[in-house]
Amino acid sequence: MFIRNNWYVGAWSSELEGGSIVARTICDQPIAFYRAGDTVAALEDRCCHRGLPLACGRVDGEILRCGYHGLEFDTSGACVRVPGQTRIPPGARVRSYPVVEQDGLVWVWPGDPERIDGAVPPSFHWHVTPGWAWRPEYKLVHANFVMLSDNLLDLTHVGFVHGSTLGGDTTDHAAARLDVTRSENRVRVARVMPDTIPGPFHVRAGGFTGRVDRYQLIDFTPGLVIIDSGMTDVGRLGADCSVAPGTFNLNKVGFNGLTPETEHTTHYFWSMAHTAGAGDPAAEDAFFADIKHTFDEDFEILDRQYARRRSLPDATYIDVDFDRAGLQARRILERRIAEERDQQQRHHSLA
Amino acid sequence: MFIRNNWYVGAWSSELEGGSIVARTICDQPIAFYRAGDTVAALEDRCCHRGLPLACGRVDGEILRCGYHGLEFDTSGACVRVPGQTRIPPGARVRSYPVVEQDGLVWVWPGDPERIDGAVPPSFHWHVTPGWAWRPEYKLVHANFVMLSDNLLDLTHVGFVHGSTLGGDTTDHAAARLDVTRSENRVRVARVMPDTIPGPFHVRAGGFTGRVDRYQLIDFTPGLVIIDSGMTDVGRLGADCSVAPGTFNLNKVGFNGLTPETEHTTHYFWSMAHTAGAGDPAAEDAFFADIKHTFDEDFEILDRQYARRRSLPDATYIDVDFDRAGLQARRILERRIAEERDQQQRHHSLA
Amino acid sequence: MFIRNNWYVGAWSSELEGGSIVARTICDQPIAFYRAGDTVAALEDRCCHRGLPLACGRVDGEILRCGYHGLEFDTSGACVRVPGQTRIPPGARVRSYPVVEQDGLVWVWPGDPERIDGAVPPSFHWHVTPGWAWRPEYKLVHANFVMLSDNLLDLTHVGFVHGSTLGGDTTDHAAARLDVTRSENRVRVARVMPDTIPGPFHVRAGGFTGRVDRYQLIDFTPGLVIIDSGMTDVGRLGADCSVAPGTFNLNKVGFNGLTPETEHTTHYFWSMAHTAGAGDPAAEDAFFADIKHTFDEDFEILDRQYARRRSLPDATYIDVDFDRAGLQARRILERRIAEERDQQQRHHSLA
Repeated sequence: MFIRNNWYVGAWSSELEGGSIVARTICDQPIAFYRAGDTVAALEDRCCHRGLPLACGRVDGEILRCGYHGLEFDTSGACVRVPGQTRIPPGARVRSYPVVEQDGLVWVWPGDPERIDGAVPPSFHWHVTPGWAWRPEYKLVHANFVMLSDNLLDLTHVGFVHGSTLGGDTTDHAAARLDVTRSENRVRVARVMPDTIPGPFHVRAGGFTGRVDRYQLIDFTPGLVIIDSGMTDVGRLGADCSVAPGTFNLNKVGFNGLTPETEHTTHYFWSMAHTAGAGDPAAEDAFFADIKHTFDEDFEILDRQYARRRSLPDATYIDVDFDRAGLQARRILERRIAEERDQQQRHHSLA
Repeated sequence: MFIRNNWYVGAWSSELEGGSIVARTICDQPIAFYRAGDTVAALEDRCCHRGLPLACGRVDGEILRCGYHGLEFDTSGACVRVPGQTRIPPGARVRSYPVVEQDGLVWVWPGDPERIDGAVPPSFHWHVTPGWAWRPEYKLVHANFVMLSDNLLDLTHVGFVHGSTLGGDTTDHAAARLDVTRSENRVRVARVMPDTIPGPFHVRAGGFTGRVDRYQLIDFTPGLVIIDSGMTDVGRLGADCSVAPGTFNLNKVGFNGLTPETEHTTHYFWSMAHTAGAGDPAAEDAFFADIKHTFDEDFEILDRQYARRRSLPDATYIDVDFDRAGLQARRILERRIAEERDQQQRHHSLA
Repeated sequence: MFIRNNWYVGAWSSELEGGSIVARTICDQPIAFYRAGDTVAALEDRCCHRGLPLACGRVDGEILRCGYHGLEFDTSGACVRVPGQTRIPPGARVRSYPVVEQDGLVWVWPGDPERIDGAVPPSFHWHVTPGWAWRPEYKLVHANFVMLSDNLLDLTHVGFVHGSTLGGDTTDHAAARLDVTRSENRVRVARVMPDTIPGPFHVRAGGFTGRVDRYQLIDFTPGLVIIDSGMTDVGRLGADCSVAPGTFNLNKVGFNGLTPETEHTTHYFWSMAHTAGAGDPAAEDAFFADIKHTFDEDFEILDRQYARRRSLPDATYIDVDFDRAGLQARRILERRIAEERDQQQRHHSLA
């Protein structure tokens, strides 16, 4: 189960350069993304004539032309030309999806357009703020998307899974102070580890030689988890996770766009914006190598975890104390899923 | 769905040389083809003892010997020897299939032998006519066989899919004159493009420097599509697609044997017989390279088209003007499928 | 179908060295095997918290620590520590399986522990007898485990499948004397081929130059087939398969541990203990190369046989004379499967 009435990341803007068409299934719906002049269009990825994916075709201005027989579609999904005839057959159209491009990202609404109701995609200004370095990354994860928000909302795993990079003391991780706040569609977590040791990454990227204060500010909404984290010398972190001006903070802000492909697979769009070393190619490369290694460790865990869960569908699970942020996110997702189900049933009973 | 009471290509004769056994599933039935002395036999590819495919065994004269315990079968499918005992157990036999070898092809009847009723496989004399060059090719296509007859009966796609070889002007392709004739089990199409530009292949193989007349004569029967095509200098093509004696015609005749493996996969046996350059190894290689590239483009389209159709089983499709030959072929196949279904139901109700 | 209330090989002892955790599904149940101090433990391979396989974790003394959030389990499957909290949640445990390690093998009982009732795993003393050479081998076979006991209890196939190694005269193989004895859970076969030719392996490993007497003593119990075989110069074999003292016997004893992974796949643990050439590395290598080639030929047969059987689920099969030992084994397995089914039904109706 997943929610469709939501803004999800569909693609990185950079994937659509040079006439590229990105084929991506979102919430079980195959979609072809392409740059149509000044805007981005998202069409059902299936020609209504013989079924070839439209992503096998070509972009020509605002037109997407099928690669099999040359039928042409505009950004609304209407077929506007059939080679060899002037008549456009009734029903010659494919579905188009609402799209918003901002912050280097293409957001798509795979659900009912009438439910948008003014909602706008979340912003991530770090992608467009001077002085911040980041790289657009993508991975298809073989896990239900709830496993991914669980992973990001419980950072106790950092000590056990990422020992060679973000790592740190596993006991301090488990004992981290955790302030969880939930509103209707959002979970915020302030997670603080005062007076602890840095991970190997922090030594390499931040040059820490002694004990540190460490924090993560996690912001979950369905489809996106932002993690604003930092580290500073011990004693320099305020109660509100602020760092005194002039104090070095190894600050990085992670973008984690989580888009259901199917019930069992999730598109993971990620970046890690940072200022330390930004502009220095060698430092950026080193930073990125560590972070990519960290994400690869998560992907391995997520794939194996989910494969096991699928192989034992009747198994039961326990929850522990540090799950409480993830559980709040699950409650939001479950409520939204139930709401969509109710809406569809009402829709069917009215029809 | 597919029809079983039909002659289909099961193998190229050349595949059976040197004692080779060809294992191929035809209409959901695994079959082992082998050369049994002067003839070709086709047996159910499953030993009736423990189930090893008979294609894992060895040919010995007219005998096919199982590779596991040495049981021996004759061309009728009867088990004629069990090692270590003289008694042949009752029921020790496998199904055998009617086979006809001609024109370098092995044709098989996967359905009810009583329904053959004098029917003979279609001939393709170009394979045995001196002066014509051709090569036997095979590809397993991941598409229902109707997608393949659609493809061959609508050559509008040539302009869009095969631009670097057969190509030509896409608008002229869409505007080609199309004469469609249907009889009980056959669709014939005469498709003419007068006064058009040649494709890159025609320039290379035929040396055309100016505008040309181009034609295709397509002959569909279930299981085989023959395409006799040609090109000549503009103004030299008769209304009946004949070319005046002494006029150069870049004539080629394509054999397209389409044999259902399963509902979702189709064996594609193809050749392209031609005279231009025949006998000159370099010219034959160049001709073949272009044609093979063209077929590979079709296979890519067919695989991707069918994968999309399977992923969206409830989607609906439109037809356009240039589909009318393909639609006639579909009508024939649908009628034949319905007839077989009725025959089976009558058979079951009588039993 | 398979029986669960049985001792099966779960792993080779040598697989568990150096803290290695072996993940293996046995009778549909994923199990993590690890060496816990002086003993071997087998736990359900799924953390009860978020589902990561425990085999992705680490061994620490008798503890298996989950690789995701560090939950710790003892050899009984009880969770004994949750990082960051002192309370162990109710239900925080995974299933543990009875294990016995002997003869270089780890045996596991995947069924109801109450049904062990004093049963002990079979012994295979050749693995621990000085003077015998052997190597631990493993292969996952894509076949139901009954296909594997069929294969081992009917050695007629040796002549047809293993012509380049164990081989010999196919007619003599089919005419071999076969004494079959069945008790409640065991089938014993004495199979004798007097006055026959040796196979290529026997010439290489035993140096036979003339005709030979050949025997195999096969001992089937569910989960294990032991084959004690030998060959000697013609006329030197007693009626009871004994060889006179001082007479060279190319004796080898095969261990064939057959453990269902699923209905359609079987773990095959095999070794071939022997004395001829033992201690001479070159002779051991040559012996092993021949034997491994032989097993690979069986695996190929088994995979292809079972794939065909699965593709034709309604097919019927015949039995022949030399199947009679295999059929006795099938009767035992069928009875045991029926018994387990009855036990479960009684269990459910009482509950």
